[in-house]
Amino acid sequence: MSNSQRDLTLYNAHFVDGLVKAGVESAVISPGSRSTPMALLLAEHPDIDVYVQIDERSAAFFAIGLAKASGKPAALLCTSGTAAANYLPAVAEAKNARIPLIVITSDRPHELREVGAPQSIDQNRLYGAHAKWFSEMALPDADDSMLQYVRKTAAKAVYITKQSPAGPVHLNFPFREPLLPDYDGVFERLEMERFSSIHLSEGTRVLPQSEIEAFAAIVKEKEKGLIVCGEHQSEGFGEAVIKLAEKLGYPILADPLSGLRSGGIHSDLVVDSYDAFLRNQNIKQAAAFDVVLRFGAMPVSKALSQFIRNHSSNVHCVVDGGGGWRDPIGVATHMFAADESTFCCALSSFLNERRETSSWLKNWLQVNETAKMKMKSVDDYEELDEGKLFYEVLKRLPDRSALFVGNSMPIRDLDSFFFTNNRHIRLFANRGANGIDGLVSSALGAAAVTSPMYLVVGDLSFFHDLNGLLAAKQNGIKMTVVVINNNGGGIFSYLPQAAEPKHFERLFGTPADLDFVHAAKLYGAGYQKVIDLASLDQGMAEAEKTDGLFILEVVTDRAKNVAAHRELWEKVSQEMNKLTAGDDFWN
Amino acid sequence: MSNSQRDLTLYNAHFVDGLVKAGVESAVISPGSRSTPMALLLAEHPDIDVYVQIDERSAAFFAIGLAKASGKPAALLCTSGTAAANYLPAVAEAKNARIPLIVITSDRPHELREVGAPQSIDQNRLYGAHAKWFSEMALPDADDSMLQYVRKTAAKAVYITKQSPAGPVHLNFPFREPLLPDYDGVFERLEMERFSSIHLSEGTRVLPQSEIEAFAAIVKEKEKGLIVCGEHQSEGFGEAVIKLAEKLGYPILADPLSGLRSGGIHSDLVVDSYDAFLRNQNIKQAAAFDVVLRFGAMPVSKALSQFIRNHSSNVHCVVDGGGGWRDPIGVATHMFAADESTFCCALSSFLNERRETSSWLKNWLQVNETAKMKMKSVDDYEELDEGKLFYEVLKRLPDRSALFVGNSMPIRDLDSFFFTNNRHIRLFANRGANGIDGLVSSALGAAAVTSPMYLVVGDLSFFHDLNGLLAAKQNGIKMTVVVINNNGGGIFSYLPQAAEPKHFERLFGTPADLDFVHAAKLYGAGYQKVIDLASLDQGMAEAEKTDGLFILEVVTDRAKNVAAHRELWEKVSQEMNKLTAGDDFWN
Repeated sequence: MSNSQRDLTLYNAHFVDGLVKAGVESAVISPGSRSTPMALLLAEHPDIDVYVQIDERSAAFFAIGLAKASGKPAALLCTSGTAAANYLPAVAEAKNARIPLIVITSDRPHELREVGAPQSIDQNRLYGAHAKWFSEMALPDADDSMLQYVRKTAAKAVYITKQSPAGPVHLNFPFREPLLPDYDGVFERLEMERFSSIHLSEGTRVLPQSEIEAFAAIVKEKEKGLIVCGEHQSEGFGEAVIKLAEKLGYPILADPLSGLRSGGIHSDLVVDSYDAFLRNQNIKQAAAFDVVLRFGAMPVSKALSQFIRNHSSNVHCVVDGGGGWRDPIGVATHMFAADESTFCCALSSFLNERRETSSWLKNWLQVNETAKMKMKSVDDYEELDEGKLFYEVLKRLPDRSALFVGNSMPIRDLDSFFFTNNRHIRLFANRGANGIDGLVSSALGAAAVTSPMYLVVGDLSFFHDLNGLLAAKQNGIKMTVVVINNNGGGIFSYLPQAAEPKHFERLFGTPADLDFVHAAKLYGAGYQKVIDLASLDQGMAEAEKTDGLFILEVVTDRAKNVAAHRELWEKVSQEMNKLTAGDDFWN
Repeated sequence: MSNSQRDLTLYNAHFVDGLVKAGVESAVISPGSRSTPMALLLAEHPDIDVYVQIDERSAAFFAIGLAKASGKPAALLCTSGTAAANYLPAVAEAKNARIPLIVITSDRPHELREVGAPQSIDQNRLYGAHAKWFSEMALPDADDSMLQYVRKTAAKAVYITKQSPAGPVHLNFPFREPLLPDYDGVFERLEMERFSSIHLSEGTRVLPQSEIEAFAAIVKEKEKGLIVCGEHQSEGFGEAVIKLAEKLGYPILADPLSGLRSGGIHSDLVVDSYDAFLRNQNIKQAAAFDVVLRFGAMPVSKALSQFIRNHSSNVHCVVDGGGGWRDPIGVATHMFAADESTFCCALSSFLNERRETSSWLKNWLQVNETAKMKMKSVDDYEELDEGKLFYEVLKRLPDRSALFVGNSMPIRDLDSFFFTNNRHIRLFANRGANGIDGLVSSALGAAAVTSPMYLVVGDLSFFHDLNGLLAAKQNGIKMTVVVINNNGGGIFSYLPQAAEPKHFERLFGTPADLDFVHAAKLYGAGYQKVIDLASLDQGMAEAEKTDGLFILEVVTDRAKNVAAHRELWEKVSQEMNKLTAGDDFWN
């Protein structure tokens, strides 16, 4: 029976070193007994940053944040049993959001499986379809061939997890007792250099020129076109798509997560208030288009989705470097599994120089400016409703900061109030599965890599991942959290059931009556209750000075919030009616 | 395209009514949009108790508690996406612990799957091997044949989830928008009686008489036998196994979760301090046995497991009504898939009346009494270490109360200090996978059914499921929590790595530095810091008077705790040395 201390030490040391050599720079560890050998070797390696989070669910979302902000795969380690099961929500999110994660679970050796031993569940393919790759690892063994095997498996895991579309891989390691490796100084003792590392590289998907040329011939004929951009992972995409839009004379409808509203990228063709003006009937009818070129994920705006779906377009092309079937509204006519930037450049090369600005484009830009001006009228509001609050927080974000937003309401308010600007602000959200879970942790993981980081979440999301806050304390991470506490599920107030009081509060409103000042105290965070702009200013200033976590809590009212949003959209809509009143507008 | 409001209403109403008619009395709902139709119909049904918990992970463990305490399957409902993934830890626990759960997940309809739509993950067989049964449900449809189908599927889900070994089943329901059913008063409007319900019944596993007779012939010859009892689900088992033990003249080594140490069942043959005295070398050698009859799960005591494994026994029989392969120490010679109570009665019927009490049995009982006396010497301790604390809490539990204990240390302290007694105390623990997760929620779920409920947990477990506390407030449940706060992972102090300070605190000790008075305030719980017996008394008295949640926090020291436990075991061991000093003892 193998698994001597030497086996244990060398096998795990080579695996960890293999990860590091392949480009892994961070690992998130949750405490446990079965994972002891791997935990100690991860902690011992000089070139890997180790973070600790007791709650495995939060740990996995923290790793998502690390991977998002660093652009590199993050490793995860936990003990056997339900510990590993706690990773599933983040694994599913990572799969959908294309995040490279290397999930390492420890397991009992084969002779202790499914015989009623404690902390033992069936971990084989535990994440099912949600892991890109699963491998049941061999028992620790210091034979040269096995050390080569484990090093290569580390490299292979990195290779697979990063390949587009990126996604989580799962390695299950059986460990036999005794579990204590001879870890101290092992990476100095070993001659790691005698094990060669493997160069890993991946090409992007490039279409044949003939395909591009044929497609160029189609779009050349279409004046009424739209470019729609969502979250993507294609380098140099901003410049490439702007060049393309200029040649085509199409407006760029840019979701905030597309990176086109900020970050030093600027173009007059970017339309950022479509979610507001596409609620107007006249505009929706007048702005009928012939072609849509869509890049990245589907934008968050429901008004935009409905607008696109309700017009039969001749051409609706979806370009995705990850080859995904990104067509939630079922209108695609062309699916291009092709790197977005390369596609834009290639298509541009088949187009003539910029057309005269068409009335089509002018109208889109005028409508956008008009709507945006109205949206910005929240500037004059006295009361701090959720929209106004979001607007004011955004105004106060320092240049070169990062913002993580929650799902449900915050991402929608971001869409409404994050207008094109010259600051460099990195935006993050978990839009793979859009869950309300794991947001605190994901933001903290990102905050460990990029700073200053701000998180804006609703109270339900904040509650769901309250445990995530512990990571700030345990790993010394600075972050400012703005909690919009409307005491329950704000988004349900926009749904039909809001009109029916029976069961509503109990099942949907779910008021938790939580005052997060106590959460701040529990986790040693600074705290400010925000009731007006003065206290917002004060809180933001204090947060900036605080080393660790700072929480700003804004108590809002769900019903008033819906009313305020609807009122603002109505104002925009009235402006749209004015604009489109003359017969000659947009035809 | 189907899914009119009529389809939605009737289909879900019949499913819910089908569950109720098959014996489901409770459901735990987490808020969400996609689950709207099912949530409203569950809330509307007059014969089902609905509980709400925002955090799906906690919700699922809450359902485990409900099912454990009520003995009936509990239903779970959540929305689509990662919400459903949050159930996996509890689903894995329920599978291993044989808990009947009906997991209902809502999903997007087929046309919105895997096309980049939000809150959409692949929910097909989401829990893999951890669900006993999975069914992808049809879309809502009010055709008579489809209403029959959905009612029958509800009954089938109950039928399967309860069948021994019980375990979770998973039904995935696609729902199309609009999602609002016409629920109000639906169960009065419908003539549910025209749909017949199905009588469901399951037989227990009974061995042929010839098998029992043959086995009786074997054990009749063996004087040196042991009966070992763990957690089980066999009705009438206590009386049956005592009768058998009396006929065989074997001691009954009873794990606390076997139910044999309390609850009005009493026998002089029950040995409850084996975990203490089986650490002594002399005893371990002297008490060599020839046969072990084992019922239920393997007891928690590692001393007992090692003792059994280290003696080659001729006969080691495992009896399990669920037909599980319960042999973590790999010593079984006989596997009987047979109901435990029936097996005991049948075996008894082939045995003669009680043998003269053998010296074998006398010795076991004497050793047990001696060890127990020593263990009870903590009565005289001044300082409140973890063992002493546990002992004092147990003493104070009122008759007919229930106790839920955490894994790691509390279950071991329960084993050490819960001696046979005449009170009716129901004991609970999550021993399926022995995770540190979900304990607050499981205890609260049980507390919703049986009261008064006490939970004893360590600080890591308490932290892990802190979100679980919200259910107490949101559903008006009374419970007393005793948190043993040793600021980190106490059990690691017993492991080899405790001797190596490098990385220890960071990876294993993981001190979270949490003062749970703030958690109490966040969730509106009563709170008492326990520093001595007087404050323990005061806290227990206040807790009794409190309607909702009450938290007692005891701050202990990990190092001192290990020392205190080892000292106590050493004292027991010395007593054992004295007992076995004479040559004539035990041979």
